[in-house]
Amino acid sequence: MAEEAYAVGVDLGGTKVQVALIDRTGHLLDQFSFSSQVELGAIDLSRRLCEAIQTLIDRTQKRPCAIGVGLAGQIDGAEGMVIFAPNLQWRKVPLRYRLQEAFGLPTAILNDVRAATWGEWLFGTGQGCQDFICLFIGTGIGGGIVSGGRLLTGVSNSAGEVGHTTLVSGGRLCSCGHRGCWEAYASGWGLALTLRERVAQGGTGAELLLEKVNGQLEQLNGLHLAAALAEGNELAKQLFDELALYLADGCISLVNSFNPSRLLFGGGIIDGFSGLLEAINLRLKSESLPSAAQAVELVKASLGSRAPLVGAAAAAFAQVSLTSIDVH
Amino acid sequence: MAEEAYAVGVDLGGTKVQVALIDRTGHLLDQFSFSSQVELGAIDLSRRLCEAIQTLIDRTQKRPCAIGVGLAGQIDGAEGMVIFAPNLQWRKVPLRYRLQEAFGLPTAILNDVRAATWGEWLFGTGQGCQDFICLFIGTGIGGGIVSGGRLLTGVSNSAGEVGHTTLVSGGRLCSCGHRGCWEAYASGWGLALTLRERVAQGGTGAELLLEKVNGQLEQLNGLHLAAALAEGNELAKQLFDELALYLADGCISLVNSFNPSRLLFGGGIIDGFSGLLEAINLRLKSESLPSAAQAVELVKASLGSRAPLVGAAAAAFAQVSLTSIDVH
Repeated sequence: MAEEAYAVGVDLGGTKVQVALIDRTGHLLDQFSFSSQVELGAIDLSRRLCEAIQTLIDRTQKRPCAIGVGLAGQIDGAEGMVIFAPNLQWRKVPLRYRLQEAFGLPTAILNDVRAATWGEWLFGTGQGCQDFICLFIGTGIGGGIVSGGRLLTGVSNSAGEVGHTTLVSGGRLCSCGHRGCWEAYASGWGLALTLRERVAQGGTGAELLLEKVNGQLEQLNGLHLAAALAEGNELAKQLFDELALYLADGCISLVNSFNPSRLLFGGGIIDGFSGLLEAINLRLKSESLPSAAQAVELVKASLGSRAPLVGAAAAAFAQVSLTSIDVH
Repeated sequence: MAEEAYAVGVDLGGTKVQVALIDRTGHLLDQFSFSSQVELGAIDLSRRLCEAIQTLIDRTQKRPCAIGVGLAGQIDGAEGMVIFAPNLQWRKVPLRYRLQEAFGLPTAILNDVRAATWGEWLFGTGQGCQDFICLFIGTGIGGGIVSGGRLLTGVSNSAGEVGHTTLVSGGRLCSCGHRGCWEAYASGWGLALTLRERVAQGGTGAELLLEKVNGQLEQLNGLHLAAALAEGNELAKQLFDELALYLADGCISLVNSFNPSRLLFGGGIIDGFSGLLEAINLRLKSESLPSAAQAVELVKASLGSRAPLVGAAAAAFAQVSLTSIDVH
């Protein structure tokens, strides 16, 4: 008999897999990780994942009520099928079927960004909030949208791809093939591209930035920008201001469209630049529509890199508790 | 005893007020309109509205089950209070209280764009759809968003202001005070501004456009553009292509964020340019994320200018039928 008090959370990444047994307060009772070794194939990784979950159950002597798995990729929520996960080199893997066959438990397979949103909602700075957006601004920009107390999935389970909203119509080519995406300007890769372009153009501060990478322009990234900023570098200051502007302009779109009460920010870019959230807030409050601007507060996400792991378990709990909710 | 079969719909505009008795299929049993005469004040207009509804009831000998009122403005949905409606010159008018006092019926007061969305959902081309966005592209750009079978309201009832999503970061100043809004490029007023700018710059086709307004540049608008387009004007063709691009780029943001199965288009700009929807569709399908692009179809809204009126009644029905739904 499953105990209602515990769920298994899995963060299934291309490099490592984390599994944990989590209680209803978000506390991790036990966890461990293992190497993904994706080159061994989907069947092998699925088998090792089942073994890991069984080990967790054996070690803790707690039987979970549900399993949640978060991974980067496109998922058919209704079927629990991983349609495409580039990091795992998976195509059409019936992961939920495999886990249900092994454990006979309700199982949620979901996008890692959406898992992280569940985590922040149940256990993080999204607690008690019915209208909020989680923004993860790292290498790319991902989002999870909760509106009216429901996490939006969209009709084919791909809602929340806010990194690919148009920010500069006709602008820089994005990895998705569209020009001018938010992500192409305000994510880690977008920022690095801007940084390299501007350093290549020269001007005050450019040389000092180039020295940090021994003249290897293509190695410049956000970390170097943060370091230069701390040294009072003029170009770095300009680029920080532009980054804040780009981030704010994308957030204004979300605030005016969704009218949330909270924006939660996580990811390397947010963590890497002190004062960034304050700069975004200043512009967002003055340039969003007044009724929406007044309603929203900006806060940091609180679970950090644990969010997808804890969140996968949160989604698993939600599937058990709220049978009317689709957990995709 | 109220009959469940009929609702009153009201389109409360700054120039005229339309009232109608509508059945559950969206059919108008009876309707009439009267001049708003907003200069007489909110108390007077509220009184005349009550009289009009009573006349409708007397004339049809049908007692409605609910009343719905759509108007352009900011509304406190929970209180049924009109916070600010510039066209009506209203501030803090407790309209629902007034109507409930007079008729003792469930009453929904809602934004006209949201009312039109209800109309298309229950009676128009949104029928049967659980994930769609209504876009009204006229003087401005307004939107109503249905996700997972619910019309999104946001935390302070202002969700759906998609005209004020950033399309060109740092670009043209919008009427809202923010730079680069979608509306500043792709609405009626945005298009007229672009048209005047480009005609002022001269070039092939500019003179012929200017002749249409006897040299009065500031009188040029979308109607002249449509006429010039029909004549094969080269500049008009360029501007049409740009308009389609701007509209598509804004739609791509919505498709990637919400993953709807349908986009519904209404409003003067859509009606005024044949081939516009096809041009938007072509770009949108090739530049949205594949999973979202495959899921969405673009269609015209079907109710035209009746949408807010019929939709206000639809929202009234929804309030009676689905007591768990917030109709704001």
